[in-house]
Amino acid sequence: IQKYSVNTNHPYFFNQLFGAVDPVALAGEIIALSVNTSAYTYETAPVFTMIERNVMENLGRLVFDAYDDECQSRYTGCNGLMLPGGSISNLTALHVARHYAKYASSSSYSPTNPQQEFVAFVSSEAHYSFSKAIAVTGIGIENLVVVPTLPNGSMDVNQLEILMKTMYHLYGLSRIPFFVGVTSGSTVRGSFDDIEAIVRHRIWIHVDGAWGGSAIFSSRPDIRGLMRGVQRADSFTFNPHKMFGAPQQTTAFLSRHKDILKAANSSGAKYLFDCRKSGAEYDLGDTSFTCGRRTDSIKLWALLKFHGPDGLGKQLEEKVDVLDYLVDKIRENKYFMLACDPWPFNVNFFFVPERIRMAMIKCGVDINSSTPHIPPELSKELGDISVQLKLMLHHSGEMLIPYQPISNQEADCFRIVLAGYKPFSKEDVHRIIDLIEKYGNTL
Amino acid sequence: IQKYSVNTNHPYFFNQLFGAVDPVALAGEIIALSVNTSAYTYETAPVFTMIERNVMENLGRLVFDAYDDECQSRYTGCNGLMLPGGSISNLTALHVARHYAKYASSSSYSPTNPQQEFVAFVSSEAHYSFSKAIAVTGIGIENLVVVPTLPNGSMDVNQLEILMKTMYHLYGLSRIPFFVGVTSGSTVRGSFDDIEAIVRHRIWIHVDGAWGGSAIFSSRPDIRGLMRGVQRADSFTFNPHKMFGAPQQTTAFLSRHKDILKAANSSGAKYLFDCRKSGAEYDLGDTSFTCGRRTDSIKLWALLKFHGPDGLGKQLEEKVDVLDYLVDKIRENKYFMLACDPWPFNVNFFFVPERIRMAMIKCGVDINSSTPHIPPELSKELGDISVQLKLMLHHSGEMLIPYQPISNQEADCFRIVLAGYKPFSKEDVHRIIDLIEKYGNTL
Repeated sequence: IQKYSVNTNHPYFFNQLFGAVDPVALAGEIIALSVNTSAYTYETAPVFTMIERNVMENLGRLVFDAYDDECQSRYTGCNGLMLPGGSISNLTALHVARHYAKYASSSSYSPTNPQQEFVAFVSSEAHYSFSKAIAVTGIGIENLVVVPTLPNGSMDVNQLEILMKTMYHLYGLSRIPFFVGVTSGSTVRGSFDDIEAIVRHRIWIHVDGAWGGSAIFSSRPDIRGLMRGVQRADSFTFNPHKMFGAPQQTTAFLSRHKDILKAANSSGAKYLFDCRKSGAEYDLGDTSFTCGRRTDSIKLWALLKFHGPDGLGKQLEEKVDVLDYLVDKIRENKYFMLACDPWPFNVNFFFVPERIRMAMIKCGVDINSSTPHIPPELSKELGDISVQLKLMLHHSGEMLIPYQPISNQEADCFRIVLAGYKPFSKEDVHRIIDLIEKYGNTL
Repeated sequence: IQKYSVNTNHPYFFNQLFGAVDPVALAGEIIALSVNTSAYTYETAPVFTMIERNVMENLGRLVFDAYDDECQSRYTGCNGLMLPGGSISNLTALHVARHYAKYASSSSYSPTNPQQEFVAFVSSEAHYSFSKAIAVTGIGIENLVVVPTLPNGSMDVNQLEILMKTMYHLYGLSRIPFFVGVTSGSTVRGSFDDIEAIVRHRIWIHVDGAWGGSAIFSSRPDIRGLMRGVQRADSFTFNPHKMFGAPQQTTAFLSRHKDILKAANSSGAKYLFDCRKSGAEYDLGDTSFTCGRRTDSIKLWALLKFHGPDGLGKQLEEKVDVLDYLVDKIRENKYFMLACDPWPFNVNFFFVPERIRMAMIKCGVDINSSTPHIPPELSKELGDISVQLKLMLHHSGEMLIPYQPISNQEADCFRIVLAGYKPFSKEDVHRIIDLIEKYGNTL
């Protein structure tokens, strides 16, 4: 099986936002496997229940514990769970936000008005799981408003405001805006929405930090600054299986509202949750809408224990710096061209063969710009280069790199991210550039 | 961590519907861990994608491939996925069934009538995940109708019919019955609903075989007969991590409707699903409402490969026979009393100390009946015995056994199930009876 599988631990596996397992997290997973229990009750999973509580408390402090002048608020605890993946986290966010909108005292929801519908907002760069989750939750795809982004891929907050106001004027209380899904690190561009500007709205703000939420671990302003305002968000999620190489899957969901998960999910199944059982006050299961739960917390706990939040932050900083170096090399190299302005964790670019470069110069394309405007006929040709080049690299077994279109470009471009426990040096930057050139120049 | 954890591999761990890992499935999980990929695209997970397809095809034949005289139908394929747990399977079933009800041509749903609501039916023995899922899907708990059961815990199909008719008379087309959740092996009693009687309704029939669905592997009439009619169900789920000891979590979801998962879930995210990529025609990810997906199929594949469906069936038969022997021993032993009629996979019983037995005889309780009627004051005392005795066994480390109330008894009773890869002999039956007696007689 291993022989015919893709080696996701390969240093040049760039295909997805995961890969390169951290050995400490892997050891955690193996311990979990050896115990093989379910994290619903303390009785059945005493150690993992306490580990999960500890992890959530530590993460809660990192995410929500910043004194907020404007709100005059201090951290007083949070509510969190490990969930099976980022998509289910976004689904959970929609679900608990709707529960909150229905039952919070200040809500404009009226239980006697069956015509009322809830409306959620996400940017056009948001993860596709929101549109899947909006169908599962029954909110309906017609009630998911897609907010345009600025040229850099960040949500256009002015547009968000205009859309909300327009909605109110058109529908009054029959369409209740209840949710904004903020993207912290979009899949392709790696763009971050401006949390601080968005949290001013008194509406449930969910920060989907599946990929970029890892920025909470760094104290460097260029990284942690991307998360400015997160302490006032209502919920937050991130996937340590992406940036930090925990085995599939490791996902944390957190909310500032202390009892929201239980309020939205509890069914109080008597055969499982019973206060007369040993340690029942620690049980987590009834706060989830799943029953059996994997003991995923141990992987994040192991990462935090071994590297510490600062160690994880340092990993991030090293990645950001080497990607920065990659951007420099792309700008310097005549066969490479940026596809859009790079964000700290994602670099999107084209490989441009000589003949296309000449044609572009002829058409007046500014190939040194980071957001070049490429005419349609050349876009087609350039995109085909990405498609063919990827397959060549794939078949040679030397690199697996993804291509995809981004909003400001018609042509498919490459994306480099450093997911996982991936020590990556300037030499690696040179090597991948050489490798792409080697195959690219045959096209 | 192992030291302070519960040893779920212990032969007398009876606390939940899992435990005692099968070494072959464990080896599969370790291989999956070593590859650490996500089963969304063939490109990233070629082997696991094909394994998952193979497993689903094999299961589909076992579940749906029976020539049906009444429907004159033959098996022509199915649609399936591994999902993270039974609760998410039940949620998925509700979600795809609603999609089907909305878009199937024969539906009484009208998209222009916002007053229409969908109504689901489950028995009072059904798993609590249905009530959680009905909240998540936004169908609303008021639209989950709980059908009473017969004295043996099986859904009262006459009552189901009456409830459906009443609903139609009361609400007409504004409440559309769209879903029946059939329980095959309830958590506590182990009761099975009569699938054959229920599938006569032209409505989405989901068989929740998380626990008892394993019966599809046996050809013995007393076991396979429990699933009679399943070939006409619309969807089916079972958890190999329960009966067969696959590591947490291993859950299969199947539907007879070949493209329903894609129809209900597809978003066609371009950066991930792209027909120009190698093997894209095999991709499974877009048929799921999750994004990253664990490669859980390998565990079920390993079980099927090593034991074969017949081998799994034989495991089941051995369990049923030894539980039958346990029932005999309970009937023979004056300190034990059945709490309800046993089903093949679950035995519920009381430990009855001498003084309570004497008091019951005085009150005229038939202690040899399998459904004894115990007066409230004695129920209280008897239930307390279960609570205390469980804690004693727990603290001694010799056995972890659950207690819970069942619908026909006020007092908490014990439940024995043989979950996992658990060779269990008549000697074990004697030993657990002796063990319970040893501690019980001190109470």
